[in-house]
Amino acid sequence: MEVRLASSRGFCFGVEDAVQIDEEAVHERGPGRVVALGPIIHNPQMVEKLEREGLDQTGELGAIDPADQAVLIRSHGARPETYEQARARGLAVVDATCVLVKRAQEAVQRLYEEGYHVVMIGDPNHPEVRGVIGYAPNVTVIDEGCDLEAALPYRERLGIVAQTTHSPEHVAQMIARILVRPYKEVKIINTLCLEVTRRQEAALALCDEVDVMFVLGGMKSANTRELVRLCRQKGMTTYHLETWDQFEPRMVENKSVAGLTAGASTPEWIISDFARRLETI
Amino acid sequence: MEVRLASSRGFCFGVEDAVQIDEEAVHERGPGRVVALGPIIHNPQMVEKLEREGLDQTGELGAIDPADQAVLIRSHGARPETYEQARARGLAVVDATCVLVKRAQEAVQRLYEEGYHVVMIGDPNHPEVRGVIGYAPNVTVIDEGCDLEAALPYRERLGIVAQTTHSPEHVAQMIARILVRPYKEVKIINTLCLEVTRRQEAALALCDEVDVMFVLGGMKSANTRELVRLCRQKGMTTYHLETWDQFEPRMVENKSVAGLTAGASTPEWIISDFARRLETI
Repeated sequence: MEVRLASSRGFCFGVEDAVQIDEEAVHERGPGRVVALGPIIHNPQMVEKLEREGLDQTGELGAIDPADQAVLIRSHGARPETYEQARARGLAVVDATCVLVKRAQEAVQRLYEEGYHVVMIGDPNHPEVRGVIGYAPNVTVIDEGCDLEAALPYRERLGIVAQTTHSPEHVAQMIARILVRPYKEVKIINTLCLEVTRRQEAALALCDEVDVMFVLGGMKSANTRELVRLCRQKGMTTYHLETWDQFEPRMVENKSVAGLTAGASTPEWIISDFARRLETI
Repeated sequence: MEVRLASSRGFCFGVEDAVQIDEEAVHERGPGRVVALGPIIHNPQMVEKLEREGLDQTGELGAIDPADQAVLIRSHGARPETYEQARARGLAVVDATCVLVKRAQEAVQRLYEEGYHVVMIGDPNHPEVRGVIGYAPNVTVIDEGCDLEAALPYRERLGIVAQTTHSPEHVAQMIARILVRPYKEVKIINTLCLEVTRRQEAALALCDEVDVMFVLGGMKSANTRELVRLCRQKGMTTYHLETWDQFEPRMVENKSVAGLTAGASTPEWIISDFARRLETI
């Protein structure tokens, strides 16, 4: 069948940087001597590849040996306490935090210092969000299903940031819901990743040309899930898969053109492998 | 027929204050010696009453006699240049600007001083808006039909205020449209009048109980027109009238319960007169 690729897809510079920082550190220090506090990106295949190359991604700060090992902060970033604890234990820190996540962390700190009650639009269980909200006390995290009346203070000065991988439309609609309530002042720092936004726009544009969409990426990857959500919201039959292994022929029954895109942590080899195989069907 | 009044309606404290400031000034200085630069509120019947009591509302700054007359700034406020010109001509100034309009003027000035590109959501022809945007250079005024791509600067720090009489829903939706475009930062100062918001909520609540709505107020009154727009948006048959003189029996044909509300510059005697007559139908 015919396969069309989204014009913007896959690895963003934040993920590319994180992988490169990791590979350099492992090359320099040797296998097993760089320990990440969890998977450094949300793509199991890439995580496995890095693991094979010598990165330990199951670390806990207390178990890392300062004499022999360095701690790697993954692309999603970490709370300030993590850096402090690493420093207190005398650990070398390799920081692979995405520059845009760093910018969100700084925005939260600045808004708090300016006297705003800080609000983050995002998934409270996502590591990026758990890290970013560590940069100010009492940040309120809100997402789609949230009861804003109960969650937000009344007639306040609110400082708002969003999880970097959310879509501008989603953030705009969440803020519109905030603005119909009483407030004194709202200051929004744009923390959205333009690369993610471009992938979302490209995926939506591709929906107009195809009969079915495949979105490749980790099941926990927030930006991949947002791509899936947006395509489905547009009424497109959309499958979220990690690799070709999960493909089933019924998915393309009676379809002639398939669209293909991938989240920001999906390596190009997974995408091209999938495209090549789908074309032979 | 049965007539139900909106729980919140008519004169707001800004209009009450403006009328009182005028009446005191006319009492003190004498009829013809207080000159407003246009109708002091947007209600023709009230304007006429104040005219009869001795307020001149057809004034031009250059024609007022400093030896004998004072200039009255109406509830909608005025640009800083108006105050400067009055001072330069040695005129006494009686300031009846609504405190909330003053707050909007100060917000515009502060946002500009903080380095924001100032945006005002409002009707560019309304005297409040024409006055408020005088407090910073190059304020962009946007309203419903506006092409935001053309009107707003790209990836900027935007400081936003709104015409005091707009509804929170309208402002939230305009800002949502701004937020789906690229921007660095958006700071919103809430300049909405809570009394106007309460009248809007009361009118919408009343829509659920009645067969037809009457909204009393000047044809040029922005907050009255917003009440009409909101009720119609809810699917309610709604008439915007100034007084009982414009009532026609066909308006209540086959209707048994009428709702009645009024804009913030509509005096209570117009409302109660209308209610009394409608009840006898």
